[in-house]
Amino acid sequence: MNQAPTDRTRIRRVANNAHYDSATLHAIIDDAYLCHIAFSEGKGAHCIPTACWREHDHLYIHGSNGSRMVKRLLESECCVTITHLDGLVLARSAFSHSMNYRSAMVYGRFEKVEDAGARQAMEAFMERIVPGRQADVRPGSDKEYAATTVLRISLAEAACKVRSGGPKDDEEDLSWPAWAGVLPWTRTALAPEPAPDCGIEAPVYVRDWQRGA
Amino acid sequence: MNQAPTDRTRIRRVANNAHYDSATLHAIIDDAYLCHIAFSEGKGAHCIPTACWREHDHLYIHGSNGSRMVKRLLESECCVTITHLDGLVLARSAFSHSMNYRSAMVYGRFEKVEDAGARQAMEAFMERIVPGRQADVRPGSDKEYAATTVLRISLAEAACKVRSGGPKDDEEDLSWPAWAGVLPWTRTALAPEPAPDCGIEAPVYVRDWQRGA
Repeated sequence: MNQAPTDRTRIRRVANNAHYDSATLHAIIDDAYLCHIAFSEGKGAHCIPTACWREHDHLYIHGSNGSRMVKRLLESECCVTITHLDGLVLARSAFSHSMNYRSAMVYGRFEKVEDAGARQAMEAFMERIVPGRQADVRPGSDKEYAATTVLRISLAEAACKVRSGGPKDDEEDLSWPAWAGVLPWTRTALAPEPAPDCGIEAPVYVRDWQRGA
Repeated sequence: MNQAPTDRTRIRRVANNAHYDSATLHAIIDDAYLCHIAFSEGKGAHCIPTACWREHDHLYIHGSNGSRMVKRLLESECCVTITHLDGLVLARSAFSHSMNYRSAMVYGRFEKVEDAGARQAMEAFMERIVPGRQADVRPGSDKEYAATTVLRISLAEAACKVRSGGPKDDEEDLSWPAWAGVLPWTRTALAPEPAPDCGIEAPVYVRDWQRGA
């Protein structure tokens, strides 16, 4: 059923931006809170955003037992993609404009994480989202865990594509009198917004939010 | 070939976060520089990130004539998804944690934009990326335009899902002694990075970058 890994993950366009090492892949996943998952159904495909996290060489997601996505992902191959957009690249020529980005694509099939493994994974998810939070919250009940499916996919068949740095104009365009360079972005934390009915003092992970995110 | 729009775009999970109006859809697309496109091929699906922009009731992308994605998108149905993550939602109970986000999904088939329409669309793309930039750059040549395919997809079959605001704990969890609220983010511009070989003074759209992005 699987194609050979090199068929699905070999990057064809701008192949010198391709990376196939775990360090690049893990860093891209660990900087993300969500992924987009493509899966086929009937005559078309769906592209669903969902929260994700990594443990070792697997990417994890979760969903309600009854969700269409959970059912389909257990039945068929999919493609999981994460993309971070880092900046706009302004070149002298219109067609040399680009964007700086880091993207990862994972191909394969999700498997269900059972019982104790699912609990451990959901706790790891919380720890990933907000380190230290797990100890403060009302833990999941047996009923809540029973209604939730945790899925994971191996990172064995994956590829990354990364563009960074300045514009690359053709030699003959370098003298064109246009500013050239990068307009970069970053994700910045804003002030925490306590719920109106929250009388609890902000814990350290909330106070650190604005500095650390 | 198409399913009825309501079948593909009807939101089933947390349906009260669903929006089907153009204003919500346009705002989500216009705040994005890229989308993820899912399309089927053989036994599986691909999820490809690519730059996008909107004009009226179409979403536009572009690619090299020879790219696999361009070929497949002209042949088959796809799903285009844009997701903005706005913050982490910390509830008292572990399973009531959530994220604030704005997502849009568009179903349909891309069509090729021909000749003068393609040129006009690529200029609109530049104007969308950096207003004012078009006048400064070396314009695309006939050869460059001929090697590039511009595609567009109707926004007629689309749905949005938006979560905003604070945590929603069950009544019996409200007294649990955990801080509750939102840890929000935003995208922030960083200082422009001129190319080392750029001797041109920064134009107004570059000087404005840090304020306006």
